[in-house]
Amino acid sequence: MKNLIIASTSTVYGGEYLDYLTEEMSELFKDTEEVIFIPYARPGGISHDEYTAKASKAFDKIGKKLVGLHTFNNPVEALKNAKGAFTGGGNTFVLVNSLYRLELMQPLREAIFNGLPYMGTSAGSNICGVSMQTTNDMPIIYPPSFKTLGVIPFNLNPHYLDPEPNSKHMGETRETRIAEFHTLNTVPVVGLREGSWLRVKGDEIILKGELKARVFEQGKNPYEVETGTEFSNF
Amino acid sequence: MKNLIIASTSTVYGGEYLDYLTEEMSELFKDTEEVIFIPYARPGGISHDEYTAKASKAFDKIGKKLVGLHTFNNPVEALKNAKGAFTGGGNTFVLVNSLYRLELMQPLREAIFNGLPYMGTSAGSNICGVSMQTTNDMPIIYPPSFKTLGVIPFNLNPHYLDPEPNSKHMGETRETRIAEFHTLNTVPVVGLREGSWLRVKGDEIILKGELKARVFEQGKNPYEVETGTEFSNF
Repeated sequence: MKNLIIASTSTVYGGEYLDYLTEEMSELFKDTEEVIFIPYARPGGISHDEYTAKASKAFDKIGKKLVGLHTFNNPVEALKNAKGAFTGGGNTFVLVNSLYRLELMQPLREAIFNGLPYMGTSAGSNICGVSMQTTNDMPIIYPPSFKTLGVIPFNLNPHYLDPEPNSKHMGETRETRIAEFHTLNTVPVVGLREGSWLRVKGDEIILKGELKARVFEQGKNPYEVETGTEFSNF
Repeated sequence: MKNLIIASTSTVYGGEYLDYLTEEMSELFKDTEEVIFIPYARPGGISHDEYTAKASKAFDKIGKKLVGLHTFNNPVEALKNAKGAFTGGGNTFVLVNSLYRLELMQPLREAIFNGLPYMGTSAGSNICGVSMQTTNDMPIIYPPSFKTLGVIPFNLNPHYLDPEPNSKHMGETRETRIAEFHTLNTVPVVGLREGSWLRVKGDEIILKGELKARVFEQGKNPYEVETGTEFSNF
């Protein structure tokens, strides 16, 4: 049974890394002492060790040991045997590129479908969708494919931002960009605001956190859904 | 001799399509009655004919006929014979994908190096750089490559936006995204604010418009350059 937390951001404004998710993380990873960390999104180009050390601090607080996937001789086997995994944010192109180059996309997908408790934030959430094609990130590396894990039947736009009503900027709004996506793709998109996450248990996908989410379906006007909504109709 | 206008945006706030560029366009295209329009960035999924009709209005004002490249039986030959070309904005992934699929990237590059007067706005400017990897656009289609025309020796970030000092949003700023680009790439990036453009004549590249531009080089602090600056040191 799939078992995931898919969060818009690692950090909410004024908060510490992952602190708003402490309770939910504790529950997700209740059956394991050790969680594998997938560091490949490499925010700001930091090393995998540095990123693992940063993320470890939040896991220390819930009494879990975080171990970087890059430290295993056989990462495919490590994912198969893992009892928990967390993928941090950074750049989604970099993350997806690494997962393909290291041949980890398919093993991670299988592990999640086999019940691996998984948490993602930002780029680590983007990869749970059908494709990474609604990321906000810059294409700083060319990945072998934009297809991602597809453990949920739609795409995400993490860090969703509402249009600024008084903006004088002529660049596209987030909503316009997602509308452009829908000129070429039929996959629905959920815009997750910072502080929102999806809790996935099997085929049940529920919006959590205090905020609404914005849903974009091809050929429909975008609409808001309340926290607690189950995304079952896609 | 290369001869280009590379503009951040087609439209400045409160203005009409291309109106702030009227004088500069008239000069660029002074030796031709007909300009070829490259409509492939397809903003909002509109048809190539619709986009050509929209852009034509601005060219009518300077007494030029705009002809869509999609209307030619032999677009490679059309580019070779053209006396002027304009690529409008939209989605850079869509534009680059089309140019590769239609085998037009190389012919367009050759035409520009052979002196074709060329104007680009937004996505049409992005493709003048070494790669499209500092675009702001969503990856709504998977192009065969991120490499672009390379008619200038750096990359662009059109619609450059300064960080909002009071923002509570935790997503990356434009500056952070470009810094991430420089963790993997050495190509300098020029952040062109809306209303700025580059005027290229041969190897001379001059910043035009009223605003400063922001320059990002790997391993250096970003810095501002005044209008009138010549980008000769890259």
